[in-house]
Amino acid sequence: MQIQYILEVIGTGFFAISGALAANDKAEPDWFGASFIGFITSIGGGSLRDILLGSYPLVWVHDINFMYAIFIGIILASMFFKVLIRLRKTFFLFDTVGIAMFTIVGTEKALSLGVHPVIAAIMGMFSAIMGGVIRDVLTNEIPIIFKKEIYATACLTGAVTYLTLDYAGLERNVNFLLSAFIIITIRIIAVKKNLSLPKFNRT
Amino acid sequence: MQIQYILEVIGTGFFAISGALAANDKAEPDWFGASFIGFITSIGGGSLRDILLGSYPLVWVHDINFMYAIFIGIILASMFFKVLIRLRKTFFLFDTVGIAMFTIVGTEKALSLGVHPVIAAIMGMFSAIMGGVIRDVLTNEIPIIFKKEIYATACLTGAVTYLTLDYAGLERNVNFLLSAFIIITIRIIAVKKNLSLPKFNRT
Amino acid sequence: MQIQYILEVIGTGFFAISGALAANDKAEPDWFGASFIGFITSIGGGSLRDILLGSYPLVWVHDINFMYAIFIGIILASMFFKVLIRLRKTFFLFDTVGIAMFTIVGTEKALSLGVHPVIAAIMGMFSAIMGGVIRDVLTNEIPIIFKKEIYATACLTGAVTYLTLDYAGLERNVNFLLSAFIIITIRIIAVKKNLSLPKFNRT
Repeated sequence: MQIQYILEVIGTGFFAISGALAANDKAEPDWFGASFIGFITSIGGGSLRDILLGSYPLVWVHDINFMYAIFIGIILASMFFKVLIRLRKTFFLFDTVGIAMFTIVGTEKALSLGVHPVIAAIMGMFSAIMGGVIRDVLTNEIPIIFKKEIYATACLTGAVTYLTLDYAGLERNVNFLLSAFIIITIRIIAVKKNLSLPKFNRT
Repeated sequence: MQIQYILEVIGTGFFAISGALAANDKAEPDWFGASFIGFITSIGGGSLRDILLGSYPLVWVHDINFMYAIFIGIILASMFFKVLIRLRKTFFLFDTVGIAMFTIVGTEKALSLGVHPVIAAIMGMFSAIMGGVIRDVLTNEIPIIFKKEIYATACLTGAVTYLTLDYAGLERNVNFLLSAFIIITIRIIAVKKNLSLPKFNRT
Repeated sequence: MQIQYILEVIGTGFFAISGALAANDKAEPDWFGASFIGFITSIGGGSLRDILLGSYPLVWVHDINFMYAIFIGIILASMFFKVLIRLRKTFFLFDTVGIAMFTIVGTEKALSLGVHPVIAAIMGMFSAIMGGVIRDVLTNEIPIIFKKEIYATACLTGAVTYLTLDYAGLERNVNFLLSAFIIITIRIIAVKKNLSLPKFNRT
């Protein structure tokens, strides 16, 4: 569990980097604006999950290590801005690992609070994607989850996998790795093959 | 009360249909995006009300029937997309009945938690309209409640009516039907006659 | 403390005026829309702070005087619309005093709930700026805090000042005035000299 905690803190820092970089595409924020967007991107999903579940205190409000990770992430994003923009393809991998981990952690947390598995899956997905959705809303863009290659759907699939294997009695750590692996695989294939879900009004 | 519960669940499903259809006007979401917007539209108003009131657990988190109603709504929206778009005028009636019911149910809930009647009226209106506001923000549109024919104001009028008649001692079920009827009537007249409130800076 | 309560209620009313006026720049809302935006602007920041902290009941839900201040603010904004638009420079001063006060009050409240000072500073800033951010999102604009002359950064500086002097043992009322004064001074200088923070991707 110690390892998972460290991964969560690091994952939060990576989300802050990705948020601060994404902010620059359109809104052209100043230093504060980029930091603010990085901050919101990294804590938005987990905060929304916990507020919907009524689970207090919020993790980052309670444990200052998450703030430190966010600060470090933003400073790194600022120092290595050009390099990071060029490395976006590598960075995509970090984001993918991040959403996979956040999905499973969020699903587990919701489940531990006694909600129905369907709700737990939604909360897991929310943990991973809603920070980005809030970021897109703040920078006045239509959230990419509505359009881009399979993204939220990968998280949802992973959450459902986790819940199914958990119900079937699979050992927790194995299940964690396996379900995260499924999210990562779906996401990578979707991007490589440029796969999208069909449009809703496709008829 | 059993009847009211059934109506609430059905109303949530209708809100999901209306959200999924509305999503297509501009954002052109994929299947997931439309479902997500339908989901947010149907649970957004009630969730915001309960979060502001600190009333946990949120209804849809606690009672899985609401999720089932949303799923069914989204599947129906997808299957009968073209028919539903053509039937929008009929559909307008469902939306109107829906906001009327949500307004009164929300007002009652807030009142039962002991808040001031003014706050209860605002919470009732929020229950009905905020799902649509969140939907509009997510799809990058200026919320229609700021511009369209009398909409939120109809809800607010109905909520105030309910509170006044409740204070005057009218029997609850009669009051419910009467106040909902007032919301529906105002809304239908406003649309038929194309009535809007005056612009704020009209001078 | 009585004085501070009165100032808070008045400050809420001023925020409602400023929100109702700002709404008109782009969204051209009707009477209801402007009131709604004024309302959200004035209660948004404090509500978000309290929801993130899990501090219930929300102030305006519990104490009806805040709603009365908002109503009066909106009615004044409507009655004296033209005059107020012309007086915007004077009005800027009210807004500045408002954000200064909200920042310190919010920081104090968070601190009294036992959070880390870093979190308290963020919550103080949120109290002051997030109402405006929500207003900008609702009216489909990129929040001004990402671009404009130093704004949120002034609040953050004031909050950090307050926390530092509080830690150093300065008497609370003196600290309150001094920290608020720092926010006001930074903000006025920033606007007079047209100072912005550097762009994030300035390299």
